[in-house]
Amino acid sequence: MKSNLMGFTTALALTTAMSVQAAELPQQTFLNLETAQKLANEALINCLEGGYNVSVAVVDAAGLTRALIRSDKAGPHTLESSRKKAYTAASMGRPTADFANLIKKMPEVAGLRDMDPNILILGGGLPIKVNDQKVGGIGVGGAPGGHLDQACAQAAIDKVLG
Amino acid sequence: MKSNLMGFTTALALTTAMSVQAAELPQQTFLNLETAQKLANEALINCLEGGYNVSVAVVDAAGLTRALIRSDKAGPHTLESSRKKAYTAASMGRPTADFANLIKKMPEVAGLRDMDPNILILGGGLPIKVNDQKVGGIGVGGAPGGHLDQACAQAAIDKVLG
Amino acid sequence: MKSNLMGFTTALALTTAMSVQAAELPQQTFLNLETAQKLANEALINCLEGGYNVSVAVVDAAGLTRALIRSDKAGPHTLESSRKKAYTAASMGRPTADFANLIKKMPEVAGLRDMDPNILILGGGLPIKVNDQKVGGIGVGGAPGGHLDQACAQAAIDKVLG
Amino acid sequence: MKSNLMGFTTALALTTAMSVQAAELPQQTFLNLETAQKLANEALINCLEGGYNVSVAVVDAAGLTRALIRSDKAGPHTLESSRKKAYTAASMGRPTADFANLIKKMPEVAGLRDMDPNILILGGGLPIKVNDQKVGGIGVGGAPGGHLDQACAQAAIDKVLG
Amino acid sequence: MKSNLMGFTTALALTTAMSVQAAELPQQTFLNLETAQKLANEALINCLEGGYNVSVAVVDAAGLTRALIRSDKAGPHTLESSRKKAYTAASMGRPTADFANLIKKMPEVAGLRDMDPNILILGGGLPIKVNDQKVGGIGVGGAPGGHLDQACAQAAIDKVLG
Amino acid sequence: MKSNLMGFTTALALTTAMSVQAAELPQQTFLNLETAQKLANEALINCLEGGYNVSVAVVDAAGLTRALIRSDKAGPHTLESSRKKAYTAASMGRPTADFANLIKKMPEVAGLRDMDPNILILGGGLPIKVNDQKVGGIGVGGAPGGHLDQACAQAAIDKVLG
Amino acid sequence: MKSNLMGFTTALALTTAMSVQAAELPQQTFLNLETAQKLANEALINCLEGGYNVSVAVVDAAGLTRALIRSDKAGPHTLESSRKKAYTAASMGRPTADFANLIKKMPEVAGLRDMDPNILILGGGLPIKVNDQKVGGIGVGGAPGGHLDQACAQAAIDKVLG
Amino acid sequence: MKSNLMGFTTALALTTAMSVQAAELPQQTFLNLETAQKLANEALINCLEGGYNVSVAVVDAAGLTRALIRSDKAGPHTLESSRKKAYTAASMGRPTADFANLIKKMPEVAGLRDMDPNILILGGGLPIKVNDQKVGGIGVGGAPGGHLDQACAQAAIDKVLG
Repeated sequence: MKSNLMGFTTALALTTAMSVQAAELPQQTFLNLETAQKLANEALINCLEGGYNVSVAVVDAAGLTRALIRSDKAGPHTLESSRKKAYTAASMGRPTADFANLIKKMPEVAGLRDMDPNILILGGGLPIKVNDQKVGGIGVGGAPGGHLDQACAQAAIDKVLG
Repeated sequence: MKSNLMGFTTALALTTAMSVQAAELPQQTFLNLETAQKLANEALINCLEGGYNVSVAVVDAAGLTRALIRSDKAGPHTLESSRKKAYTAASMGRPTADFANLIKKMPEVAGLRDMDPNILILGGGLPIKVNDQKVGGIGVGGAPGGHLDQACAQAAIDKVLG
Repeated sequence: MKSNLMGFTTALALTTAMSVQAAELPQQTFLNLETAQKLANEALINCLEGGYNVSVAVVDAAGLTRALIRSDKAGPHTLESSRKKAYTAASMGRPTADFANLIKKMPEVAGLRDMDPNILILGGGLPIKVNDQKVGGIGVGGAPGGHLDQACAQAAIDKVLG
Repeated sequence: MKSNLMGFTTALALTTAMSVQAAELPQQTFLNLETAQKLANEALINCLEGGYNVSVAVVDAAGLTRALIRSDKAGPHTLESSRKKAYTAASMGRPTADFANLIKKMPEVAGLRDMDPNILILGGGLPIKVNDQKVGGIGVGGAPGGHLDQACAQAAIDKVLG
Repeated sequence: MKSNLMGFTTALALTTAMSVQAAELPQQTFLNLETAQKLANEALINCLEGGYNVSVAVVDAAGLTRALIRSDKAGPHTLESSRKKAYTAASMGRPTADFANLIKKMPEVAGLRDMDPNILILGGGLPIKVNDQKVGGIGVGGAPGGHLDQACAQAAIDKVLG
Repeated sequence: MKSNLMGFTTALALTTAMSVQAAELPQQTFLNLETAQKLANEALINCLEGGYNVSVAVVDAAGLTRALIRSDKAGPHTLESSRKKAYTAASMGRPTADFANLIKKMPEVAGLRDMDPNILILGGGLPIKVNDQKVGGIGVGGAPGGHLDQACAQAAIDKVLG
Repeated sequence: MKSNLMGFTTALALTTAMSVQAAELPQQTFLNLETAQKLANEALINCLEGGYNVSVAVVDAAGLTRALIRSDKAGPHTLESSRKKAYTAASMGRPTADFANLIKKMPEVAGLRDMDPNILILGGGLPIKVNDQKVGGIGVGGAPGGHLDQACAQAAIDKVLG
Repeated sequence: MKSNLMGFTTALALTTAMSVQAAELPQQTFLNLETAQKLANEALINCLEGGYNVSVAVVDAAGLTRALIRSDKAGPHTLESSRKKAYTAASMGRPTADFANLIKKMPEVAGLRDMDPNILILGGGLPIKVNDQKVGGIGVGGAPGGHLDQACAQAAIDKVLG
């Protein structure tokens, strides 16, 4: 093992010559709970006004749930469909509907659906951006059509962050 | 953290000004075991009479199994296929075959298949409705064709709830 | 298969002699979103006031999430720990701490921890009861001790449902 | 690859010199649905009479569900706890309580709990034997104590197979 | 709960009037290990002779592995692909290639792929039948084409059971 | 549904009276890849010098992997053990060994092990803090003892961030 | 059981007549960490230079991660998408894009996507070969197009192994 | 992003100054299928002679199955228990019973059980070593006691590799 260690140490040591100063670590904007709840509530109210029983999820840039709510008559599957849409939009940085249309045009990228168990390529998810920086995603599930889910999400973004 | 808490408390406190009276909580009709077993048994008998070895699942509105039975020669995969069809119909409120046909026509909604691990977009699942209210779903798996599975499910609904 | 079917039909037919009248299905009280959100918000505020960064989940009697929120500095694992505590309390009908203490005294029931992937035997979850009927559960995760998590959950119940 | 194949072929060919005659395959008794349903129903009725809201699962020797029923007020976790108890008793051939007690006495076998995701080492599961041959298992979950769950399972076996 | 129990007891009691005699339980032929190993070995040798590095799985009628072997240069994914093909053929009773072709012709049954995590709709799996009775399945994975995988499986069946 | 919506809208509208200004969203320090790789490399070199074949994982505050490396002779399980230790330390904010010792003293908190599939309560994980702020975690797996794993992790933190 | 054992012993004993000499076990080239890290770093740098925020995974011939790194702005899903692409290329021995194109041309092999949870049929993964022997795979995820991901992977191979 | 890239490139470029020569990659001994099958068969015969119905798994150094066989009357859970024991012994390099005893003495390392879903800390698994090099593992499950399982595994190693 000696010689193996030697080679490895030589190569790696060069990357660690200097220690990191704490102050050097970068900063990033993050989506706080207060904003996340406002977004979730607005999207749900907007959908209820349209007569749609939905779940709404808001996740941060890491794809972790900040707020998840389910209206009284929304089916159980909407918990995961809304969360996954939010995750997908947050992680990929574009509306989930864009990728659904992309797969339709280019069947060779159908594998996008399988990248991660949290990915859902289906309309209804939008990235949340502030000052052109991706800070999270919002997903709606339960309306009879992804475009309707997306409209509720967009309305919430417009009202809260517009 | 102080200021953050302040902001959050201010926003949220407004939603909690008054306590909920127990009596205010709404009621919902639920699918009891007795009815669920009748449905499952009828569907299985109907399929056996047609010569089909199937599993039958009946779930409540939350998608939770009330009754699941497997005939003597049904393949092991029918346990999950019937349960998922029942879940899907209960959660989405329409026959599973409707969504299978929808994806055929609109490939951009193929992601419906990935919304939740319990979802199965394949003929053979029907929602159970009572007085126009969704109370559960029934799924059949194992017949050589989703329309045959669905026919057994429909026969059970007609006999027990018709 | 003929004789097998015969036997089965004979036995089962007896259970299906009469159809169910829709009106016969029972009713149950359910936890609506509005109440669930109040509970979640109150518990989170209570914990923040104590200096604890937590997630709070409120689920219905079926164990399905109604509301899930995560405070700005709560660790990612609190999403699942709070949800599982809420599920466990809702499904088993008692505070999760009771079962944690039970296992301590009776090691032969340690298997309680493995009953279902959603079960978490750890202090911080309380059942939500209205008129002595179990309608859901609330779970808190992230405080330095299950008794502290539970106190936040209890405070929310006291305020919203007391 | 040539030489590797050679070696492999030489060694293996000896095991395949003669073809199997179909008639040579052994027979085994299996648990049919009719019996399984009787067992499940009896166990559930027995528990209801005792005031316990439970789920009951009956599985065959392969651990596959034959019948699974959940009473109206049983918690959602009882679906999996009853099924796993039935699986464990069927696969290991003894009451699940035996293994729970064994772990208590011999902590070094606590790993029994982790052998398979379907295993549950907790009282309430019994093997189903006919003519001293293991044909399946029955599991009950939801009573306030594994011995109570087991009593319901035993009563069903006594009545149906006794 | 009294009245609920009453109704349930009345309906169910009818199905349990007589106990099952042990001797009444049916018999089924099962695939023993000896035969399973012969099949697996033959299929693997056949593929190696064709220059294909594969895994071979043989499962019983319940879809449970009897024998699983992986040749020296077969990729790690072939363990699961061969096992799933064997499971699928055993559970569905027809060559896996049939279903792959069916989906191609009828896109509305694409959901067959999602019925169960053990299902794999891809050429290379064959049911094992003895005296027209389904006793298991064999699956091969790793050859550059499902028809090549299937040919190895067929050769094994022909030699061992032909 | 009208009245239900009304009640919900009334309660929620109060939380959304004012839109969020982009500039208001808070900032947080995050662990960049460059620092993460230095930490991982240092820990691995430190362990190799001690003769231990390990994997090392560095995750950010969300528990997401920044860097994961496995030395030539480390067992496959060390990939997950190191990643989970890093996740646990990052999410819970303390050395994983602390919680292992806590469970030893207080068996009633053994459920900590089950909070989330990513949690591993076993020595070898340390939180990464900069200016008293939690920015991630480092986990080491493979040395014959958690204290040895931890020592490698500590050495890396001391050198890179000390 | 006696006779069963006899038959089995007879058949199997033939395969075990001679013991294996340790020296007889074959050798295989394996991908060490040092090379894996160089590949991962080069691919990531190449992508960053193109303006793409990606994750890069390098796995050995068994599909086990050797090195996995995620750039500062890459979405969380790229951890799994890059790892799965690397696994797929390593296990199947060809660029992942080849299989994506194959499915487009031959829809009947769409099941390739379901062979194993680690498989991802999407451009961006390349096998790593040394002296025509498969020793692992490299996968890149996060660029806006699989061909871009693949170009970064190819550049790394060319520089490190070319 | 420019400056970030610069810093990263500077640090990393040093590790990639020279390309790897193919010939430099190390070699490792691996467990071929022929040897694995002999080991599995010997262990199973040894157990059958003792009257134990078991499954036997043999895995390579990466923990991947080479051969897995299940005797006619072994419970379904033995497939996973034997495979996990083999994985654990192969990955950790010592008999699985050693770790079971270790946890008994040192409860603070109980987390070993949770390191990876493939780990099983229960007697019956042994590492396979050739010339003091770890090349795989063998696991036996189904005998009434881990020491009995282990004895069958040891007998196989003694006969085939002794």
